[in-house]
Formats: sequence, C-alpha cells, structure tokens
Amino acid sequence: MSAEAALAYARAHRAQAVDDLAALVRYPSVSAQPARSRDVAACATHLAARLRRAGFEHVRILPTRRHPVVWCAWHRARGLPRLLVYAHYDVQPADPESAWQTPPFRPSIRSDGLYGRGASDDKGQLVAHLAALEAYLRGAGRLPVNVTCLFEGEEEIGSPSLRELLLRERARFAADVAVVSDTAILGPNRPALTYALRGALGLELDVLGPAAELHSGIFGGAAPNPLEALASIVCSLHDAHGRVAVEGFYDAVRKVSAEERAQLARSGPSDDTLRAAARTPVLVGEPGYSAYERTTIRPSLSVNGISGGYAGPGSKAIVPARAHAKLGCRLVSDQRPEEIERALRRHIARVAPPGVTVTLRRGMTARPVTVDRSHPAMRAAAVAYERGFGTPPALLRSGGTVPVVGLLRELLGIPVVPMGFGLPDDGIHGPNERMHLPTLARAVDTCIWFLSELARDRTRPRLAGAVA
Amino acid sequence: MSAEAALAYARAHRAQAVDDLAALVRYPSVSAQPARSRDVAACATHLAARLRRAGFEHVRILPTRRHPVVWCAWHRARGLPRLLVYAHYDVQPADPESAWQTPPFRPSIRSDGLYGRGASDDKGQLVAHLAALEAYLRGAGRLPVNVTCLFEGEEEIGSPSLRELLLRERARFAADVAVVSDTAILGPNRPALTYALRGALGLELDVLGPAAELHSGIFGGAAPNPLEALASIVCSLHDAHGRVAVEGFYDAVRKVSAEERAQLARSGPSDDTLRAAARTPVLVGEPGYSAYERTTIRPSLSVNGISGGYAGPGSKAIVPARAHAKLGCRLVSDQRPEEIERALRRHIARVAPPGVTVTLRRGMTARPVTVDRSHPAMRAAAVAYERGFGTPPALLRSGGTVPVVGLLRELLGIPVVPMGFGLPDDGIHGPNERMHLPTLARAVDTCIWFLSELARDRTRPRLAGAVA
Repeated sequence: MSAEAALAYARAHRAQAVDDLAALVRYPSVSAQPARSRDVAACATHLAARLRRAGFEHVRILPTRRHPVVWCAWHRARGLPRLLVYAHYDVQPADPESAWQTPPFRPSIRSDGLYGRGASDDKGQLVAHLAALEAYLRGAGRLPVNVTCLFEGEEEIGSPSLRELLLRERARFAADVAVVSDTAILGPNRPALTYALRGALGLELDVLGPAAELHSGIFGGAAPNPLEALASIVCSLHDAHGRVAVEGFYDAVRKVSAEERAQLARSGPSDDTLRAAARTPVLVGEPGYSAYERTTIRPSLSVNGISGGYAGPGSKAIVPARAHAKLGCRLVSDQRPEEIERALRRHIARVAPPGVTVTLRRGMTARPVTVDRSHPAMRAAAVAYERGFGTPPALLRSGGTVPVVGLLRELLGIPVVPMGFGLPDDGIHGPNERMHLPTLARAVDTCIWFLSELARDRTRPRLAGAVA
Repeated sequence: MSAEAALAYARAHRAQAVDDLAALVRYPSVSAQPARSRDVAACATHLAARLRRAGFEHVRILPTRRHPVVWCAWHRARGLPRLLVYAHYDVQPADPESAWQTPPFRPSIRSDGLYGRGASDDKGQLVAHLAALEAYLRGAGRLPVNVTCLFEGEEEIGSPSLRELLLRERARFAADVAVVSDTAILGPNRPALTYALRGALGLELDVLGPAAELHSGIFGGAAPNPLEALASIVCSLHDAHGRVAVEGFYDAVRKVSAEERAQLARSGPSDDTLRAAARTPVLVGEPGYSAYERTTIRPSLSVNGISGGYAGPGSKAIVPARAHAKLGCRLVSDQRPEEIERALRRHIARVAPPGVTVTLRRGMTARPVTVDRSHPAMRAAAVAYERGFGTPPALLRSGGTVPVVGLLRELLGIPVVPMGFGLPDDGIHGPNERMHLPTLARAVDTCIWFLSELARDRTRPRLAGAVA
C-alpha cells in the first residue's frame, strides 16, 4: 500500500524534516515588523522552491497587499477527495532577544527540541505536512488524494489579506475538506482532536468626557468623569453571578446535549485542574456550568485592558478627559460577531451615563466553529492521530480561536479539521520557543495517515456535504 | 504713617521687583528633578542674600533631607502681632521646553507679562512679599508687625520635609497668624479672598487576580478578572445619583448655613459658568447642591486614573493579572483624611468580589481648612486687597487644596490666610507661564496694606484666639 511506502520514506528522511525546519527558522519572517518584509518574502521564495523539490509541479507565490501566500497543488487523484492544507510560515516577533538562550533565528538543537522563533508556531507544523506530502510523492510516486496547500504569511497579524484572496481566487482553493495545523495537543503521548473553537469579537471602547483633563479640586464632584462612566459600563456587562447581562447575548447559543457534556466532563480538564493552571484561588463565572464548559460551550465577555487618566507614579489630582477599554468576546455556535456587536452597541447606548460620549470600534472578529465529530474527515483525523501517536486522541472543544478555521469554513463552505501538533510547553509567542522533535516525527506520520484515511472515503459528496 | 512711606518706596522701586523676579526665575529650581538639586540650593542661597540686602538681620538656610527652607525674621515690634509669611521658591518641571516661546529659565518680558517657569507659581508671589517687606524696612525703617518668613523649596513635590521641620523648630516659626501666597484671584481687577480650601486624600488601589496574565480563550469566562473587579469597586463608590456611597463618608461634613450658601451663590460661579469652563455638555454630582457647592462645601471622590491589562494598539486576548486605580478624595471640614481612609478600606473590603486581592496605599493627605471670615486677619486681608486693587475681594471657597495651609493650621495652631496673586490664565505648571506685571505691582501694595492693617489690631490674644 502506498501509505507504507510513504511511511518508510518518511522514516528514512527524519533528518531531512529537521533540516527543513531549521532552514525555515533561519528566516526571520516576522510579519508584524515592516523592516522584516524582505525576510518574509525570502521565506516564501524558499518554501516555494522546496515544494517544487518535494514534487509539486504547480507552485505559486500569490502576492497580497503585505505578505504573500505560498500555494501549491497536486490534482491527479481523479474522483478522490480534495484536501486543502493550511499552515503559516510567518512568526511572532522575538523581542526581547536577550531572553533567548540561543538567538531566535539561529535554530539550535538541545536534548530533543529544535529551538527558534516559529519552530512550533507554525513552521514545525508546516514541515510535518511538507514531509508527509514529499514522502508520498517521492516514496509512493503520487498522493492518495488531491491536495492544495495554502501557506500563509500573515497569520500572526490577523490574516488581513486572506479573506480577499480566498474570495478573488475561489477556484484555486476549491476543496472538499481542509486541515489547519496551528493548534496544540495535550502532551507528547496525549494527542487531541479539537472539534470546536470559540469565535471572537474584539471591541474598543472610547469614553470622552470633558474636552480636556480638569483639575479635580475645581471640578471634582461636578464634572462627568469618563473613567467612572467606563467603570459603570463595565459593571453593567455582567450580572452579580457572572452571567453576561447584555440583552440578546445568549440568544443564538446552541444548546449542547447532555451526552456531549458528559463526554466533555470525562475528557476535559476538571475545575481543579483549570484553577491550578490559572493560578487563582477561585474560579468564577456563569452558574450551572463547569469551568471547562464556561470556556468552551459557553460564550464569555472579558475586559482585556482599561486605561485613562494619570498612570504615572504618585497621584495627579484630575478629572480625566477620556477613558479607554478593550473588550473581548469569545463566541460559540451559532453566535455571529456582527449580531453580538449590535447587541453590545444597544446595551452600551442604554447604560452610558450622561455627560460622556461613548464610541465603539470593532477589532478582530472570528466566527465560532464546530465540526461534526462524526464527519468522515474528523474520523480520518482521529484514526491518523491514533496510528501516529499509538493512542487515540482526546476529543476536545477549545476555548480559543483560530480565526483561519472559521474563515475557511465561512468562505469555502467546507469542514475544517483543526489538526495541530504543538505541545503546551512549546513556548510559542515567548522566548525559547521549540519544536519537540519526537512529536515532529509523529506529526509527519499522522499527516501521512490522515491522507491515507481520507483516500479510503470514496464518497466525495458525503464528505463535502456533512458540514456542521 | 509708615504705610505711606512703604508704598512710596515700593512705587519708586517697581523695576527692582521685576528684576528680583527675573533673577529668581533664572534659577531652574525644579524640586522634582534630582539633577536640579544644586540649582534649588543656589536659588536658596540667592534668596537668603537678597533677604539680608532687604534689611533682614536674621536669615537662615535651614537644611532638610532634600531642599532647604529659607527663613528670616524681624521681631522688633514688641506687643504687636507675629506674622508668618509663606511662599515657595521651587518650581514645576518645564518639560517640554519646545512648547515655550522663550526658554523657561530665561525670563522674558512680553507686553505686560514676565514669562518663565515659576514666574507666577510661586516666585512672583514670593517677590510681592519681599518687595513689601523691603519697602517697609528701607522706606519706613521698620516693619509694622513682627514677621517670620518661610520660603519653601519642596512645595511642588508635596512638602515632604515641612512637617518634620515645623515640629522640630516650632519656636522658630511661632506666630499669631500666617499668610500663604500660592493661590489665584479671579482676574486683574477681580481680587478674591479664599476662606476655605478642601482637603485631600489620595489612595492607590491594586487589584491582584491570577498570578500571571491568562489567555482569554482558555480562561475567559472562568478566571477572576481584576479589571472587572476594579470596575465593580469603582461603581460601588457612588450611588446612581452621584452621591458618594461609602458608609460614613459624609458623617463629619459640617453643615453650611443658609446665609453662607446664599452668599456663595452670589459671589461664586454659576452652574453655567462652571459647565462652560469644564467644556462638558452637562454637569453631574450630588443632588441638592449647585456645582459650585459640590466642589466647595461638599466633599468628592474622583477616579484619577485606571490602568490594567493590555493598553497598546489593537487587541490582546487576555485576562489581566492585575489592575490599578488612583482615587482622589476632596474633603471638607470637619472630615479627617485618616477617618475617610478607614471608611474607604471598610467599604472596599466589603464590596471586593471573590478571586481577587485588593490592597490600598495612602498617597497625599491634606486636611480641609476653613478660616473664620470675621477673623481680624481675614478682615485685614480684605481691606488690603481693596486698597491694593481698588475693589473689594470676592469671598470665596476653593475646591482645591493647598496642603501647606492645612499643615500650618494643624502644626502651628494659628489661622492661615490664603492671600494669592496668581491669575487664572498665568499658565502655571504649563508652558509659557507668566506673571502679570501690573498684578505684581498691586500685589506688592496689597502686601504692604496687609502688614499695615495687621498692625492696627493691637489685641494679640484676640488675633491668636479666633481660630476657625
């Protein structure tokens, strides 16, 4: 069987995958820093050349307003499913570099990790697919299904160009199912398959009071205080029990079955585990749900930041002129960011005290995603994890958001399997990020098994239709 | 009469007063900046020498932990009142110097103003007393009352050494009445005598939540959020009508008579005037009082600043680990800062939500001061203003705080007359600060008349006893 040939090739070329990862890490492809734009472009060029060497004949560097998408396709498996593989080659900034044991863009292998910025997020996960695809192309002479790769260069800055590109070049990305590898599993021997991700809605709140900062001696007690107004708005967002008190906020929340809740209780973290991880004496939140449920099957509204007035040392006797807050909602199916934004606008207009002007700006939005666990692509992923890691994956909901999952789901109308290979202690976004090399090897094998399992499902219409 | 001789001397030496002010402005005596310590000391040395030249035989530079007090005394008016004259020779920082039309420490005369840092706050007001005292000593050969001068070098950093110095050298500062010149009048032709100042209590509030910032995807909806906790504490400080909702806050507030309220309504600013000055569409605050009353005869509690969580551009999906607020109370007689602090501590302990730790740190404190308007020294000041400016002063309460007034009142047990000469548009603490030179001339004459009027009251025990 061709899977065996691919696995044999991959095993014989473990060192090649590590070299490929090291080569990618050497590019400081920091998408957020304009000074690194050339490095991002050089990384894309390198990646495109590497995909050609892997056996892809159709490779393109697709320009966007900022950083290009690297695209490649192999479509010779007539009648078989079409898979879209997503990963990103851009990375977070590495500052402060002084916190790194070895320089962030000089890959360094220590014990069983390859250290460097982007090693785990997301160049290592990209390399897992690259190695799996090359193993099939070189070891078996073909892929078991049709594959299109979308390797993005703007994920760490919120994918500003991806929507436009997908709309413009819809045909280029047509597929029956997508796999997104940009998430984590539970541990080296604890694979996990995430079937739901929360959506997100970021809002920035500006509260304007007096035209300029006032002396609190002359005006304290009579002038409207935008910080106090902001505090009263923030207070109104939750009731005394921790439930969001914005009218309509929960209207579209899909009820989760007792069976699924029981399964989540078995496979998800306990309240004690989450409490210890949060390093807090108590957990809080909506009554009637476990902490894991509050962060997965229930939406939340958090204040991420407040600023206003004097923030230096000591005191300054003022009535501030303005106050600012950043709010972040996490949404669950079938909440839509635009509806929640409207509900929040209505709520804030209703509760804003007199004397201040409140404006709301929308930040990041992402739709929640739930993938039907019984979908053939999800079953294929579960089998692949089990073969790759020797143990079946936990089926989890994540409280986090991977915007591209929702975006692919929305624009391409296909199910998206979040099949990640990061470890919780990889240190992504921080100093000394690493990819755990034994996990990289298992990830390559898992990707091979995933391709192989997808090919077993010859019923393309069923694959495409079973969208959650 | 000796007052006439002093006035004649002062009129003949108007240019000298301007030169004296210019000479003082040349010293960058910025008490807050350690790099300017030598300049502060040099300014003190200059001032001490100048006081000797004015005719004071007893002049001392009294060291403190940071910046010295310049002290001088003339005590030859046996049986007559003893007056303590207070002003300060240190200044606010002048940054950014680029905002100044002429350099802040190079005095420049434009139209009828002398521009430079400290010209009005407080070197100009200090020079008014210096010129008046010299006019008596040189023009009349003596002072009409006993005078001790206390020229401070730490006012702009909160007078950290003054309490200790006054306690240590109580005899050196013994007096029957004090005059503090560090406030403003209403306009060039609108003198004002302030008979009440609000006290102050600054508090810094730290709210600690999770041990470190958390990912809002993983923990949003379950982990305690210190910013939300802080907002709920801030909300609890006022009721829906704007009245402070802290138990006991108003207990010690002295009721003001209907007669005084009627007088304040006549002489103080209207709601419309204050609303326009605050540049806000509406005023708010405690029901049952005018805006001027809310800021003078009623205490207030303002939030001066809040910070916590992410404050950079865009959004960051976190549950913050901590939040910080600065609160500022303005107090009225007979509220005591320490009692209000206890009431606030009790209140916050009661309302703080679970999962966070709240700590309170005390900042600046100052007692409220009310001076009996019928006190002979107050009457002397009113007469002096009327003669110096040609029109009687408005009798006002100020919503602001001049801590040294309360401090002298508390430690020396004598009435303190706040007799200021700044103008509302002098630009103190900002760029292009100036002293209005016609007002400086009137201030010198007013100081002369004040000394003269004090001398008319031969009943020292009565002067000392009529403390409000």
